[in-house]
Amino acid sequence: MILNKIKNGVLEPKITLVGAGPGDPDLISLKGVKALNSADVVLYDALVNGALLNHAPEHAIKIFVGKKSGDESFSQDAVNKLMIDYALNFGHVVRLKSGDPFVFARGFEEVDYAESYSIQTEIIPGISSATGVPGLHKIPMIYRDLSESFWVLTGTNSKGELSPDLNAAAQSNATVVIMMGIDKIKEIASIFQGEGKNRLPVAVIENGSTAEEHVIVGIVDTIAELIEDHKISSPALLVFGDVVSLHPSFSRIRDFYHILSEE
Amino acid sequence: MILNKIKNGVLEPKITLVGAGPGDPDLISLKGVKALNSADVVLYDALVNGALLNHAPEHAIKIFVGKKSGDESFSQDAVNKLMIDYALNFGHVVRLKSGDPFVFARGFEEVDYAESYSIQTEIIPGISSATGVPGLHKIPMIYRDLSESFWVLTGTNSKGELSPDLNAAAQSNATVVIMMGIDKIKEIASIFQGEGKNRLPVAVIENGSTAEEHVIVGIVDTIAELIEDHKISSPALLVFGDVVSLHPSFSRIRDFYHILSEE
Repeated sequence: MILNKIKNGVLEPKITLVGAGPGDPDLISLKGVKALNSADVVLYDALVNGALLNHAPEHAIKIFVGKKSGDESFSQDAVNKLMIDYALNFGHVVRLKSGDPFVFARGFEEVDYAESYSIQTEIIPGISSATGVPGLHKIPMIYRDLSESFWVLTGTNSKGELSPDLNAAAQSNATVVIMMGIDKIKEIASIFQGEGKNRLPVAVIENGSTAEEHVIVGIVDTIAELIEDHKISSPALLVFGDVVSLHPSFSRIRDFYHILSEE
Repeated sequence: MILNKIKNGVLEPKITLVGAGPGDPDLISLKGVKALNSADVVLYDALVNGALLNHAPEHAIKIFVGKKSGDESFSQDAVNKLMIDYALNFGHVVRLKSGDPFVFARGFEEVDYAESYSIQTEIIPGISSATGVPGLHKIPMIYRDLSESFWVLTGTNSKGELSPDLNAAAQSNATVVIMMGIDKIKEIASIFQGEGKNRLPVAVIENGSTAEEHVIVGIVDTIAELIEDHKISSPALLVFGDVVSLHPSFSRIRDFYHILSEE
């Protein structure tokens, strides 16, 4: 699609990648808001909160380029081309992406493509749900003897498969955070079970930081059934690790299974 | 320290943990700004940008509770007690922490302590430098065949030591991000060398997202010397992984060492 509308005056093509944060529209950065204020065009994803579009001027063109899981209506290639077309024809394009543009979000590919057209780019990070959402539920990434590090993976790598890294992650002492993994929960749980971690605490956070947020807490052996019972679906974040035992609603599970917390 | 000043009218003690982001004052969230707007007291850390205090009302009490590396002038215990004292005596305390309050920042301990006094708490996440800062330099956390996951560690665990998790991280295929590790760079590099990863690309980002930002790129075998030559010091973030080869200034290193990038 090539657009032919030419603005009067000097046109300065620019593409700004903005991280919208995990869902709550107030979790975007001030810098992201300022970028939206000066947008001529906003290209936004499926998981971006619509309220954020109000930060863009009324005259700005707002285009949904999201793809729901499995829907290929907007390929990465199509989004890349749209960005360039709109920047050349309208000026400042804000590419508004959920979370952070460089955390499982193909921000690099988009910046790289824009630069191949010598278009000026800017990157404005956002709060990744991987780090921001567990904390909202008072689940720290690390805590004393419970965990000293965290490992972030996705349920779907570039080949559409579960990353082989998950085998090593399940063996490690790190808190394991899995984005976009809810549809493969049985496969994921079985990897932890293979490491004998049947009673490792697990949290599932659906629609983190939004009004539709839903949190459940269990252990590796029960989590797939709990997800089914509570009808949890995408988008949801999985957190595997002893730090989940610090969540208030974990105490009854601990009593039931006689799981001893270090704290 | 117990304060005795009592405000007129009804006092509603509240403690809000706010993530200030990686350094650039415009990278705080809108929600964080709103919390500061209604602060009676702000307790802020060493790495928090001073410009953020301007979001608090003029009458608000602003107290620096930071500790530089190794300086024990404000212990966690002292900060916890100050939070409670000020909340009970002045109302809304904003605890402003660099990065995200739950990513290597003891946010859990502070919320837990506040709740033990039945004081209302709120958590407002921030952009962790671990995820936000590499992206600012167009280094993605994952990229096609180069990396499918990332592992975040700290140079100093609760015992003041390098985490044993680093041994597993150096063996893994994950992008490895190390916060507060610059002082132990030789020890860290030797762990990667022990895994035969002598030519693994490494980026060091000092004062990420601020005007004093400084980025260097090298490989495991050269990084300690480069850090010394460029006089890089704390705060700095280390990124170990093939994704660093995507950084523009890595190309000359690649030519020198004949390192082949997958892309």
